[in-house]
Amino acid sequence: MKALEEKINNEGRVLSGDILKVDNFLNHQIDPTFMNEIGKEFSKLFKNENITKILTVESSGIAPAVLTGLQMNVPVVFARKHKSLTLNDNIYSSDVYSYTKQTNNKISINKRYIDENDNVLIIDDFLANGQAVLGLLDIANQAGANAKNVGIVIEKSFQKGHELITQKGIKLESLARIASLKDGKVTFE
Amino acid sequence: MKALEEKINNEGRVLSGDILKVDNFLNHQIDPTFMNEIGKEFSKLFKNENITKILTVESSGIAPAVLTGLQMNVPVVFARKHKSLTLNDNIYSSDVYSYTKQTNNKISINKRYIDENDNVLIIDDFLANGQAVLGLLDIANQAGANAKNVGIVIEKSFQKGHELITQKGIKLESLARIASLKDGKVTFE
Repeated sequence: MKALEEKINNEGRVLSGDILKVDNFLNHQIDPTFMNEIGKEFSKLFKNENITKILTVESSGIAPAVLTGLQMNVPVVFARKHKSLTLNDNIYSSDVYSYTKQTNNKISINKRYIDENDNVLIIDDFLANGQAVLGLLDIANQAGANAKNVGIVIEKSFQKGHELITQKGIKLESLARIASLKDGKVTFE
Repeated sequence: MKALEEKINNEGRVLSGDILKVDNFLNHQIDPTFMNEIGKEFSKLFKNENITKILTVESSGIAPAVLTGLQMNVPVVFARKHKSLTLNDNIYSSDVYSYTKQTNNKISINKRYIDENDNVLIIDDFLANGQAVLGLLDIANQAGANAKNVGIVIEKSFQKGHELITQKGIKLESLARIASLKDGKVTFE
């Protein structure tokens, strides 16, 4: 998505440790008009997949997921993150390891909001090591839902998430694919 | 907002302890089309206030805030919640006490994204004791921004948030005002 690459070039900041900060339009401050264009793009990419539900994880996934849901006219469910979980029969949960923070989180979704009739599209803001997406896929599988489609706003293609997801036969569409953040410079695939 | 009251009557569940669960359209599963109507309603209510920025708190405030921002064509900033904060010169932060969870959180916003030129509209999903809104007002004040407008999706009018906010001379618009949740029944104002 050309407009996204331009936005990353103009407004993104590369920090040491291969970190790309895009918190002025994506994950702290949000540009709703631009996010709506992202929703339209995802809607176009997945329009033939008969999606019935969009899954994401709080918090940064919510804006792109909701605007995609608005375009596709399907409900959005955001998984909650927890440090720990008390035993609860009403939820599906999965472990998500954060390489950035080196912590384990659990994510969960109430069983009311996903079931075997759902055909799920997973949307998230970033893909790096793929742990959040794998956690959402795990939850969709626990629910017996179909989950063969993933949409990502910004993918760090030099990390292993892309391969972990596509090797499962999943259709992965990333709107911007970053090959390198070396020397403070963003290089797209 | 009549459609919201109907949605609460049809899809909300009242639990013991004056808890209203609306997690099938507002704060776990989200109905994007309905949330867009909420955005239109807030946009209409605040259209003459020259709003330059919308503030909310992660996670449940994000969807209504972003769809209001889309209608008003202004950026949205969501405050992050933390259990504790490391000292950081680049953020404004405020303490928010949760009566439900009986825990203290800090919320923070990066100084890049709010300043004295901003005229802020605060949007949140729920108003009960008003602590999250007061925290956002505190942050807006620290930044020297103007903050005289608050929009709430569902207000529990029998709790003290409404008075705490309006006694500051702030314009508060709640789309549904609940007078009581006694005996498992929702009574609107």
